[in-house]
Amino acid sequence: MSTIRVAIAGATGYAGEELLRLLLGHPHVQLTCLAASAKWDRPVPVSEALPRFSRRIDLPLEALNSARLRERSDVVFLALPHGQAASLAPELIRAGRRVIDLSGDFRLRDPASYPLWYRFEHPQPDWLNDAGLVYGLTEFHREALPAARLVANPGCYATSILLGCLPLFEQGLAGEGALIVDAKSGLTGAGRKADTTLLFSEMAENLRPYKVNQHQHTPEVLQEIRSVSRREASMVIVPQVIPAARGLISMIYVRTSAPATAVADAYGRRYSAERAPFVRVRHGSLPQLRDVVGTNYCDVGLVYDEGQHCLIIGSALDNLVKGAAGQAVQNFNLMHGLPETLGLG
Amino acid sequence: MSTIRVAIAGATGYAGEELLRLLLGHPHVQLTCLAASAKWDRPVPVSEALPRFSRRIDLPLEALNSARLRERSDVVFLALPHGQAASLAPELIRAGRRVIDLSGDFRLRDPASYPLWYRFEHPQPDWLNDAGLVYGLTEFHREALPAARLVANPGCYATSILLGCLPLFEQGLAGEGALIVDAKSGLTGAGRKADTTLLFSEMAENLRPYKVNQHQHTPEVLQEIRSVSRREASMVIVPQVIPAARGLISMIYVRTSAPATAVADAYGRRYSAERAPFVRVRHGSLPQLRDVVGTNYCDVGLVYDEGQHCLIIGSALDNLVKGAAGQAVQNFNLMHGLPETLGLG
Amino acid sequence: MSTIRVAIAGATGYAGEELLRLLLGHPHVQLTCLAASAKWDRPVPVSEALPRFSRRIDLPLEALNSARLRERSDVVFLALPHGQAASLAPELIRAGRRVIDLSGDFRLRDPASYPLWYRFEHPQPDWLNDAGLVYGLTEFHREALPAARLVANPGCYATSILLGCLPLFEQGLAGEGALIVDAKSGLTGAGRKADTTLLFSEMAENLRPYKVNQHQHTPEVLQEIRSVSRREASMVIVPQVIPAARGLISMIYVRTSAPATAVADAYGRRYSAERAPFVRVRHGSLPQLRDVVGTNYCDVGLVYDEGQHCLIIGSALDNLVKGAAGQAVQNFNLMHGLPETLGLG
Amino acid sequence: MSTIRVAIAGATGYAGEELLRLLLGHPHVQLTCLAASAKWDRPVPVSEALPRFSRRIDLPLEALNSARLRERSDVVFLALPHGQAASLAPELIRAGRRVIDLSGDFRLRDPASYPLWYRFEHPQPDWLNDAGLVYGLTEFHREALPAARLVANPGCYATSILLGCLPLFEQGLAGEGALIVDAKSGLTGAGRKADTTLLFSEMAENLRPYKVNQHQHTPEVLQEIRSVSRREASMVIVPQVIPAARGLISMIYVRTSAPATAVADAYGRRYSAERAPFVRVRHGSLPQLRDVVGTNYCDVGLVYDEGQHCLIIGSALDNLVKGAAGQAVQNFNLMHGLPETLGLG
Repeated sequence: MSTIRVAIAGATGYAGEELLRLLLGHPHVQLTCLAASAKWDRPVPVSEALPRFSRRIDLPLEALNSARLRERSDVVFLALPHGQAASLAPELIRAGRRVIDLSGDFRLRDPASYPLWYRFEHPQPDWLNDAGLVYGLTEFHREALPAARLVANPGCYATSILLGCLPLFEQGLAGEGALIVDAKSGLTGAGRKADTTLLFSEMAENLRPYKVNQHQHTPEVLQEIRSVSRREASMVIVPQVIPAARGLISMIYVRTSAPATAVADAYGRRYSAERAPFVRVRHGSLPQLRDVVGTNYCDVGLVYDEGQHCLIIGSALDNLVKGAAGQAVQNFNLMHGLPETLGLG
Repeated sequence: MSTIRVAIAGATGYAGEELLRLLLGHPHVQLTCLAASAKWDRPVPVSEALPRFSRRIDLPLEALNSARLRERSDVVFLALPHGQAASLAPELIRAGRRVIDLSGDFRLRDPASYPLWYRFEHPQPDWLNDAGLVYGLTEFHREALPAARLVANPGCYATSILLGCLPLFEQGLAGEGALIVDAKSGLTGAGRKADTTLLFSEMAENLRPYKVNQHQHTPEVLQEIRSVSRREASMVIVPQVIPAARGLISMIYVRTSAPATAVADAYGRRYSAERAPFVRVRHGSLPQLRDVVGTNYCDVGLVYDEGQHCLIIGSALDNLVKGAAGQAVQNFNLMHGLPETLGLG
Repeated sequence: MSTIRVAIAGATGYAGEELLRLLLGHPHVQLTCLAASAKWDRPVPVSEALPRFSRRIDLPLEALNSARLRERSDVVFLALPHGQAASLAPELIRAGRRVIDLSGDFRLRDPASYPLWYRFEHPQPDWLNDAGLVYGLTEFHREALPAARLVANPGCYATSILLGCLPLFEQGLAGEGALIVDAKSGLTGAGRKADTTLLFSEMAENLRPYKVNQHQHTPEVLQEIRSVSRREASMVIVPQVIPAARGLISMIYVRTSAPATAVADAYGRRYSAERAPFVRVRHGSLPQLRDVVGTNYCDVGLVYDEGQHCLIIGSALDNLVKGAAGQAVQNFNLMHGLPETLGLG
Repeated sequence: MSTIRVAIAGATGYAGEELLRLLLGHPHVQLTCLAASAKWDRPVPVSEALPRFSRRIDLPLEALNSARLRERSDVVFLALPHGQAASLAPELIRAGRRVIDLSGDFRLRDPASYPLWYRFEHPQPDWLNDAGLVYGLTEFHREALPAARLVANPGCYATSILLGCLPLFEQGLAGEGALIVDAKSGLTGAGRKADTTLLFSEMAENLRPYKVNQHQHTPEVLQEIRSVSRREASMVIVPQVIPAARGLISMIYVRTSAPATAVADAYGRRYSAERAPFVRVRHGSLPQLRDVVGTNYCDVGLVYDEGQHCLIIGSALDNLVKGAAGQAVQNFNLMHGLPETLGLG
């Protein structure tokens, strides 16, 4: 296989940096353009903008420019703030490029959801139901990826929650009532923002709930459950930041009366090593963050309290890898017929 | 009021140290004996055993000795590993001392619970239902404290959960089904133990669930709910350690169809500034750890998702203060007719 | 003694909050005004601006206003960004108030130093040598404090370095050559600033040197050494931030050939429990941060490598307490003839 | 090139785990044996002993057994506590295996140093001066590695200090007087030990100096400086642990009067991208830890205070990568004529 020319837009954000790290080690990728959203008037050497990549890459960082991205690349990863990909991605695709978008701009099918959850009017609503658009939760959309022109890479909370509970919905084993999701994330999930609530001095020895029942990943979770199970679902969600830079773990409490064997089957079938190399399931205990940080794995643990008709699901991943850049590379591999795990070892 | 002679047994553990810190600033306390469980053959200067208290106290640390505690003190705080107070406390009380026990040894009424939850046979089962024994959840047992000979100071998880949900049970507003408790604690909750799972290197950038549905504070929570509400309750609990030294926050998910005003009334009545100076209630948002660490406050936040019939309660406290030493001092004050907040400012 | 009316200007910064915490527990202080530098158009309840002080104080936070400070207080603590006290303090003093300033605005005697180290032209240069101005390094200026109108509270690095090495200079025991100071600070030292380099995600698992040989506390250190020893000194300084919120420790490497007993005498004399209740000296080992965090102590440890003619001094304190608010309260006590340790226990 | 069969002894320690992570991604390595020092009576699945490597490797962990290591491997990495390799390595080498030892057991040439610095009598003193033994500071011993039978991989502090200052000694630019080294390390440097001083609760918000002037890496630093510069050197060293899991940074203060250009030349020559791909030099500023954590880079920054005749050198690396496992793999590559950077990208 020949080399694929790849550009990253938004290379100085946390997800962008992680993409850079992973793609530098990918055997079929040639990085050709690193763009940042800042309005730089000259290319900035990587040793200045991202000193940790000094000596590892020769490309400078350049201001974001659609024409430049089109000219230099076959595939563009967009790791930009919400709202920027909505216009940029269609432009790139019309020029024949394939796009993997890490923002929320193409995750929701219903244009009316954007003002509600993301506070912008979607400029390209037709694209939300385009035939070439795939919601990139790899384990559930693997077959659609080879033909994808645009991949909407799932949110970090959404990936954790969906990988945790979809097998249950898929097999019709989830009972009535809302899912209860108590989710904890490291602070890179909030991005590299000059915001005093994200300071080390504020978050050391702290845990802070935020956007209770209002997190923007909610609609993509419900949309995907609906799509897989053909039923409506609802969710109570309490997102929290903890004093860690990376990692995200969702504790999901599901009401069910399904037999324990049926539950085990549902997960065993979906997440065998062959079908889902990056999802590791355990029964009887819940995972810790440490085992997934820095990797593309999602560790799912199941503790079934049959007396209370409550299944407790713990779903842990690295928000910047399986929750962002790693899953994007996994999707990139499948789009190009490459082994799913390439560059993710 | 004259001075009260006070001993601390277990002064080198985290709760013991915190007791020492608080009692040093208490205007009616004269510290007369600091005992540690270790088998020291000579008194150890505080500057050696606890250098942070150097110059602040003249007492040495001595080996634990029942006669010495009896002779030198009016009140003894026991901050010992589970199982040690069970025999020691009755001995001290028979000699006329009053005891505040921070372990679990006198929290449960049913002797049969001890082998099950604490893995020891209780040596003094009669004391578990003694008339002079008070379960020291201050806000709910204030009236009984002046006559108490023995206070069983509640567990840190139990304090957080009970202060969070008891008003609801008290007013009969909790619906059917198990309480779901997702609780996160700092690592001092595990004590100063030479255990590799508690190392900085293991817990930095980590979150680790443990004792899922098996935490030893479970029975005291259920016993107290039963006592207050005259009904049986059940609970699903996922305790977790986070990369913080101090602080504990429980997210409690309760099924209810009560009107929002009834919920507000239940908490407003219980936790007015006069009736409960250390419980601060807020509506519409959940508390963060940082606002309670280092203080004796318990911050309770309520978010009511009426559509889902789910009340989300966040209950945050410092596990070593309101969850241990601070609540013990609060109980001490009420036992002696002193203002509740003395030494806790 | 009657109560003293006290105002805090800059109450929402880290040092201001710490002042608030300490002064709330001070038996002779009546807090009468909390001002913040922000341009608020209405008073903001403390429960909103500083939720951790909710129920502990009734005063609202108000916009900074010189007339209001003058009217309501006898003493004003200024905890404002550098440059603001320079004009405000003289105004307050002329109206008969006494001022304790925690910024650098009155620490340097030479007006020419301000443009160089603080990047502003001092608007009131005469005040820098006013008879009523005292450099508030308590242990060395105790006698001057009762008559002080204006106290320039030392910088956190300066306090740590000076308490660490002044006894040596005082006794003429320091050898030739520059002091080498390798200093590490927690991140509250940088203030509550919306700056991406201070984010949790940037500082977790990090250590970052900054302002090498250019830190603004340098001139006050050299000025004070000169004043005590009547000789010029020079210093190489590498300030560093570490992944901690609080605490500051300076390792000071001094060339000396003095006999070990002379060194011990110099420190023993200066820092006896009577003369310096808040400085604790140890010989043969260096202090750790943890023993001073949350206290007003400065722990000084001395390791003398006589073979290399090098004295290693470790000097640890809490940057917000002994390095800021605590030392300010210590100075306040001495200004008013109160016991030095009042409110600092 | 064919595949090399590799064993790791001590795979459950922090350095062993890091070796495992790196070697799993090495294209010419076939892992054939994972041994741990614990006395296990049966092989333990990796998913149990090291859950983060679950699904990534099929080998179980086995008890340490010299015959097994000999039979299954061509090269053995020893990541064992000090004292164990001293007998084991010669045994393996006599059987024709090549050994890379990460402990201190073969770093010192003088057998008399072992009782003094490591507290054991070396059982195989002849091997300390064996012709096949190479001190594995890669950048200075590259030429000797192809013929090496036994590599003594340098200590983490030693690597940081030596890479920081050797060019200066090599060119005769260091002045008289002791090197002053103020070094800070993350806690994995202390190993996975059940020791209460390493607990999260003890180290959060802490910094703790230890082994002042007594660290066991001291003699290897002085031996190497002597070997490179043909002169005696001396060192004052203050090792410190900081609240981080990984990373080590040494601030080195050297007295010199060399011209700035000579200093720049010394480093430029040694550490060009061709000669030293993993050492990145900068002038005028000091490095931060974050840029090297998780990589095999050593970042060296130089700030020259010519007025004080003091060169400040900051030398930062990841103690588990360039300070242990990464440098070991780098040496492995050179021993086998492979590109130096293989598996280290």
